[in-house]
Amino acid sequence: MNLGILGAGQLARMMALAAYPLNIKCSFLDPATDACAGSLGQLVNGNYDDKAGLAALATNADCVTFEFENVPADALESLAQQVPVYPPPGALLVSQDRLTEKNLFHRIGIETAPFAEVNSLAELEGAVNKLGLPAILKTRRLGYDGKGQAFIRNRDDLAQAWQSVGEVPSTLEGFVSFSREVSIISVRGRDGETRFYPLIENVHRNGILHLSTVLVNDPLQEQAEQMIKTLIDEIDYVGVLVLELFHVGDKLLANEFAPRVHNSGHWTIEGAFTSQFENHVRAVTGLPLGETKARCPAAMVNIVGTLPDTTKILNVPGASLHLYDKTPREGRKIGHVTICANTDKDLEKRIKQVAKLIDTD
Amino acid sequence: MNLGILGAGQLARMMALAAYPLNIKCSFLDPATDACAGSLGQLVNGNYDDKAGLAALATNADCVTFEFENVPADALESLAQQVPVYPPPGALLVSQDRLTEKNLFHRIGIETAPFAEVNSLAELEGAVNKLGLPAILKTRRLGYDGKGQAFIRNRDDLAQAWQSVGEVPSTLEGFVSFSREVSIISVRGRDGETRFYPLIENVHRNGILHLSTVLVNDPLQEQAEQMIKTLIDEIDYVGVLVLELFHVGDKLLANEFAPRVHNSGHWTIEGAFTSQFENHVRAVTGLPLGETKARCPAAMVNIVGTLPDTTKILNVPGASLHLYDKTPREGRKIGHVTICANTDKDLEKRIKQVAKLIDTD
Repeated sequence: MNLGILGAGQLARMMALAAYPLNIKCSFLDPATDACAGSLGQLVNGNYDDKAGLAALATNADCVTFEFENVPADALESLAQQVPVYPPPGALLVSQDRLTEKNLFHRIGIETAPFAEVNSLAELEGAVNKLGLPAILKTRRLGYDGKGQAFIRNRDDLAQAWQSVGEVPSTLEGFVSFSREVSIISVRGRDGETRFYPLIENVHRNGILHLSTVLVNDPLQEQAEQMIKTLIDEIDYVGVLVLELFHVGDKLLANEFAPRVHNSGHWTIEGAFTSQFENHVRAVTGLPLGETKARCPAAMVNIVGTLPDTTKILNVPGASLHLYDKTPREGRKIGHVTICANTDKDLEKRIKQVAKLIDTD
Repeated sequence: MNLGILGAGQLARMMALAAYPLNIKCSFLDPATDACAGSLGQLVNGNYDDKAGLAALATNADCVTFEFENVPADALESLAQQVPVYPPPGALLVSQDRLTEKNLFHRIGIETAPFAEVNSLAELEGAVNKLGLPAILKTRRLGYDGKGQAFIRNRDDLAQAWQSVGEVPSTLEGFVSFSREVSIISVRGRDGETRFYPLIENVHRNGILHLSTVLVNDPLQEQAEQMIKTLIDEIDYVGVLVLELFHVGDKLLANEFAPRVHNSGHWTIEGAFTSQFENHVRAVTGLPLGETKARCPAAMVNIVGTLPDTTKILNVPGASLHLYDKTPREGRKIGHVTICANTDKDLEKRIKQVAKLIDTD
């Protein structure tokens, strides 16, 4: 079987590594000639809306998927005329626009922070009147890793915030004082079979994910599962999907979803019985889903910007190193470390050891 | 870092998959143009003693290793002039000759079944007089998966046995009535650091490994560790080495060792904290060794000859499928299934489910 992937970054790389033992061969479309998944299969060079590139990807593929949500949805839709495309392009469309996404959440009863549409400085002022401050202005499209966002503390910041996001269609989101940021990852097969990974607690630094820790038997697991199940059934989803959530009081508020494998699920390679990458590949190619339970207390620390002393990391018991073969650059995710342990206490100790080694730059 | 591998079969394939996350790129030398590791790195086509091929492999390699022990040792030794070669070619030389191997075992105090050198039918008769029957005649060189062996029940079989092994230099081994066949896998770093995986019980069918089950806290673990440690220290070994053993009464007798990753260790991909493939790569490239403990009750069933219904296998909880992208052929290993469980009882149940699915042909 052949799986075409739009994008050849680290997510595609980890999908391809998971696909190999299933005898599923991957090919990739990516504008970068040195894209880091490229050595794991055929790499077609081209933009994601490049017709010849898309056709080349489709030619040998039994199925096409994507590694990130900023792929032009119309490119996917035209591709879907030739070859099965999963997740469904419709899900991608929704996730590409924060306002559409938030409106969908509300329509199907998934609670979020208060939000308002913003298309001008005047509308921003109106939205602030309605939602109060502090609040966060976010572009409707093309934001990731904290980009395209402005935190607004007081009214004097409005003009600057509007300018800083590029004066493009945006949403204002009321700031919620959350106790934790968590995410839940589900996988849904072509036949609708659905499984959930355990909740994950996420800690960000400078808007970039720093640490994800698995929460086994968290009291909010069921609430999170109900929320994500409502969503994926509504959009008739196929593949891995992550829902990012704020834990506020005794409930969860939806922040956003990503229709793909997700950084907060990288721990699953060693920490779960089946990794999110293998389960995504299984789901989109129509294979049965694998067990999503955690094997042990587990966590993941990202390697961002600078390559640490990897020998020291490999010396930490239970640490598994994943480098993406990407040139180090400020703010760039170049790898991660999964940390497994037999007890929560050991896990915490090891996380500290690894985080310290990564922080040395 | 670049790792050159002699051979591009499934063992090289699984080494390369383990090397990727460490940013170690593999290249391969193999006579087959369709060798199954070939899509994971540069494949140089050539015989293992092909000078141009060896030179091409060495050119970009920081280190060279091998996936099976029938590589010509003098090719490795000439390669070792250009680039570090691990495991040491000397260990390979010993393992290539059953008599040399058995003599080494005896010299360093590792007990084996009784054995004798056989270079002619007359010597075979003499050896039978000395060791008794039943006994097994094995060629000194180039045997694997039960090939090059003849089981001798009575004196009338001698001439036929001698003919069937090709009348080449051989050993006669006294038959030991063992209760179990087990193996122990160790990994030794360039600095001499050594770790051991838990003992594994192995069941063969038609001379080919069928089932390997991890034995956690087996009372013979320490005895096995002492035996393999004596061996690897003696030959100043670097990399993964497996020692196959017979369990007879309350002690272990050495059968043979393999200076490489081994089929009885395939369960380590999911079942151990660090797989034998990653640990071999770490050891030969000079990186620190990883944890060798088992994560959970685990086993491995080989897929030999015919491709089973893989969808059904993927439906067995805790089963991980590994296909080697090899054309099915009678007696050919084309994949394996790792089975993990939370309890020994669940493991046994799942092994039966998987074995039944594989046996349907």
